[in-house]
Amino acid sequence: MKIVNIEDIKGTEREVQGEGWTSYRMLLKKDGMGFSFHETIIPAGAELHLWYKNHLEAVYCVAGNGSIENKATGEVHQIHDGVLYALDQHDAHILRGGTADMRLVCAFNPPVTGRETHDADGSYNLVED
Amino acid sequence: MKIVNIEDIKGTEREVQGEGWTSYRMLLKKDGMGFSFHETIIPAGAELHLWYKNHLEAVYCVAGNGSIENKATGEVHQIHDGVLYALDQHDAHILRGGTADMRLVCAFNPPVTGRETHDADGSYNLVED
Repeated sequence: MKIVNIEDIKGTEREVQGEGWTSYRMLLKKDGMGFSFHETIIPAGAELHLWYKNHLEAVYCVAGNGSIENKATGEVHQIHDGVLYALDQHDAHILRGGTADMRLVCAFNPPVTGRETHDADGSYNLVED
Repeated sequence: MKIVNIEDIKGTEREVQGEGWTSYRMLLKKDGMGFSFHETIIPAGAELHLWYKNHLEAVYCVAGNGSIENKATGEVHQIHDGVLYALDQHDAHILRGGTADMRLVCAFNPPVTGRETHDADGSYNLVED
């Protein structure tokens, strides 16, 4: 059994920041769960172009608001507390912060190692431990 | 891309209840993510004896409070907003509700199908689609 308190990983290598997001890697590949598990904060007004070509991702909003645009179809879905989106087709998308910082709980398959960076196209590369 | 709003699955087969818990199956095996993803509410004062012999589970608390006891060691960990526990050793445990209903976001590997029931020993059986 592992216990992870988000307060204990703030300021460590498990806190990762980029333009328009901060992510806390609660569980990584090395934790051996078969998925990784993150909390990610998207500030109000942010805009991120993302395309996880190598990963499936589920994202569940538990506070704040924003929207997701499916680049392939142009459809826009509102995100708020209680809404999940699943990128089951490696969907290229635009994630937009709304009027209050979005608190997102995310799972990735395959699990991220924690050393990935966003490529120019918004994907994570695959990293072997 | 799939969008799931918890309000839309309340009262459907994706809302599952037992003594001391209610779970909303946001993503199941058939959703093809390689994990399942749930929101589970543990009421204040509840006590559950659980042992997922067939699954690994990560559980992240985003509201309320309670505790988890590791049956093998007797250790008790407090759970509140921002605390995750990972059952990476199929750990038998006792989950206790605290003074305010716990809101938990959970991922299971392998993914549950939605038709599992808790066995007498607190595990989920493995179900093939």
